[in-house]
Amino acid sequence: MVQIAVLGYGTVGSGVVEVLNTNQESINKKAGEEINIKYVLDLRDFPGDPIQEKIVHDADVILNDKEIRVVVEVMGGVEPAYTFVKRALLAGKSVCTSNKELVAKHGPELLEIAREKNINFLFEASCGGGIPIIRPLNSSLTADEIDEITGILNGTTNYILTKMSKEGLEFDDVLKDAQEKGYAERNPEADVEGYDACRKIAILSSLAFGNNVDFEEIYTEGITRITAQDILYANEMHMAVKLLASSRKVNDQFYAMVAPFLMDDSHPLYSVNGVFNAIFVHGNVLGDAMFYGSGAGKLPTASAVVADVVDAVKHLNRTVMTFWSSRKLSLSSIENAERRFFLRIPVVKLSEAQALFPGSEVVRVAELPEECALVSDQMSEKAFEEKAQKLGGVISRIRLV
Amino acid sequence: MVQIAVLGYGTVGSGVVEVLNTNQESINKKAGEEINIKYVLDLRDFPGDPIQEKIVHDADVILNDKEIRVVVEVMGGVEPAYTFVKRALLAGKSVCTSNKELVAKHGPELLEIAREKNINFLFEASCGGGIPIIRPLNSSLTADEIDEITGILNGTTNYILTKMSKEGLEFDDVLKDAQEKGYAERNPEADVEGYDACRKIAILSSLAFGNNVDFEEIYTEGITRITAQDILYANEMHMAVKLLASSRKVNDQFYAMVAPFLMDDSHPLYSVNGVFNAIFVHGNVLGDAMFYGSGAGKLPTASAVVADVVDAVKHLNRTVMTFWSSRKLSLSSIENAERRFFLRIPVVKLSEAQALFPGSEVVRVAELPEECALVSDQMSEKAFEEKAQKLGGVISRIRLV
Repeated sequence: MVQIAVLGYGTVGSGVVEVLNTNQESINKKAGEEINIKYVLDLRDFPGDPIQEKIVHDADVILNDKEIRVVVEVMGGVEPAYTFVKRALLAGKSVCTSNKELVAKHGPELLEIAREKNINFLFEASCGGGIPIIRPLNSSLTADEIDEITGILNGTTNYILTKMSKEGLEFDDVLKDAQEKGYAERNPEADVEGYDACRKIAILSSLAFGNNVDFEEIYTEGITRITAQDILYANEMHMAVKLLASSRKVNDQFYAMVAPFLMDDSHPLYSVNGVFNAIFVHGNVLGDAMFYGSGAGKLPTASAVVADVVDAVKHLNRTVMTFWSSRKLSLSSIENAERRFFLRIPVVKLSEAQALFPGSEVVRVAELPEECALVSDQMSEKAFEEKAQKLGGVISRIRLV
Repeated sequence: MVQIAVLGYGTVGSGVVEVLNTNQESINKKAGEEINIKYVLDLRDFPGDPIQEKIVHDADVILNDKEIRVVVEVMGGVEPAYTFVKRALLAGKSVCTSNKELVAKHGPELLEIAREKNINFLFEASCGGGIPIIRPLNSSLTADEIDEITGILNGTTNYILTKMSKEGLEFDDVLKDAQEKGYAERNPEADVEGYDACRKIAILSSLAFGNNVDFEEIYTEGITRITAQDILYANEMHMAVKLLASSRKVNDQFYAMVAPFLMDDSHPLYSVNGVFNAIFVHGNVLGDAMFYGSGAGKLPTASAVVADVVDAVKHLNRTVMTFWSSRKLSLSSIENAERRFFLRIPVVKLSEAQALFPGSEVVRVAELPEECALVSDQMSEKAFEEKAQKLGGVISRIRLV
């Protein structure tokens, strides 16, 4: 029997307990050992809940118990999670976490400790919820050099954009609806400003490229400026607006960014709607691949955490995780990244705009007679910004995939 | 340095050599060892090709060489692949194969030998080409009880159906085009009759459910009877026809089948077009997930084979593969499977048909005034067939997902 402890009995923590109970028999069979939850750490008590007898309020009880071999950290946030996780690893306990803030900030250090101790620091649930992506990147795509990872990594924003697109609603109205349905937090900033997706793409890029991508260096733009009018144009062009978190290797330069993009139906991410997430990966021999599923939610996230627990139990004294180095990966300025741009302008500016953006396509929607839009040729971010500034009066601009 | 040998220098075999050369540095780093191809077995010679110096015509050279630790089998077909693979495993050499016929027919026996010898028998490339699915099923989805796997597992048929759908062409014409483009074999039977997909779903089902699914017991129907007229109706209903290979667990009954199905755009497989493959998986806690990518082709398939080689090299004396038992999984007759059915009938039969299929929806397309179609309510295969026979004159019928 392998004793484990769960830090945090919130949404994901209670999901982990539920999944371990529901699929107990098959999980133990796959792990090759009986897995038993000995403690659950939480500040609260849960009288009447069978979990109450396992609740402890003091992390030391867990960290000092030599019987505990695997610690599940599902508290979220950097502290005190970081302190507890580091102490657990130093005490020779493997750690499985869903905590993207922790992994994005301290991943290389915690991986290094796990490697020194011949144990595991696993974080499948930190990116893409239930979607298997960390393990496939590490152990399936090993024949490839990955040159692109582009994901829809945040379910809240994808729900909002999908609903804006299908129902023609404004951002604020859909956000309110999403908050009422529990798909968005009362403080939605981390989701709608792209911060959540930014941490996730930092983790995925670090794994794919082998060196540490600092999430604070990733250019990040949220969806708060996307309007119902932008969506009218998108629908007219048979395109969708998606918040993409993307990193690319182009001629030994690395680019990473989070921003809304327009894409057409030839891209596999086009049809990823609602709260679903998906991660598109391009390898130099594999070509295109995509991983799709529930990016959040109690049980899908718990499914990924428990899969990590199974892996940790199967490899109690052996590090399975491919490493990513603490050496910093230098990101190139996105100024040099080349792409096409969509921009809306007052109709009186059209001929001036066409002179500045030769070869661009004009898009009109009947509902907005006073304005029009252009889709530019391929150009650098820098060149686009300079021209747009020179033109003036730009109503909005969105990048194209 | 780890010495390996490649059995077969055809499309996939030459791809394996190419991938190992192209990404040599990163592959060796991930494997933790330098991987060297010592021999390539082929009946032919390749004068002028650098591979010539490694070509051997006698499998014994490889099987008797104690230096060879990993054998790549990419010959295809059951024999002599089976004999060579079994001898390699018995000699303590791990085997990585892309050979679905071999795995579907002898998987449990070969896995058992690998386990006894503490080596590995790996077959990521046997299902879904470059798409990572075997390893995710085995090591990522371990918290779940899988209750459905449904895949578009054959690129040839998906290419044909996509082209029929977009261009309104007949099956025979598209098949001819596909043969000219190299997307279909000159003898296309294994693809268009569903035999290829059948072997792949047998392997995936055996892994997901833990017991051996005999591919010969899987109900298999190809796409040769799908016509341009069927596609007219599908387009009218905003649906797509896809050849699906599917297995489900419903109330402890297991169902497996390969057949064309109609699906609408709410299903993640709907937008998988052309030669791409995708595998949809439903777990009891994960919910829906999907894995998408190139299901065939030289380099994508080689990418999966080489990823297996990396895994085999990382685990030279340790079996990593979850096992599937040789105990036979009893499949229930699809007679009892319940679903909706699309059926085309002469328009004169409509009222009779509506009496037999109460609650069904009527579909008409302008191009076919003499006929009409019904979409039935949910009913068993058996009940449908009985009613359709009683009605008589059915022009075609397609299942709905």
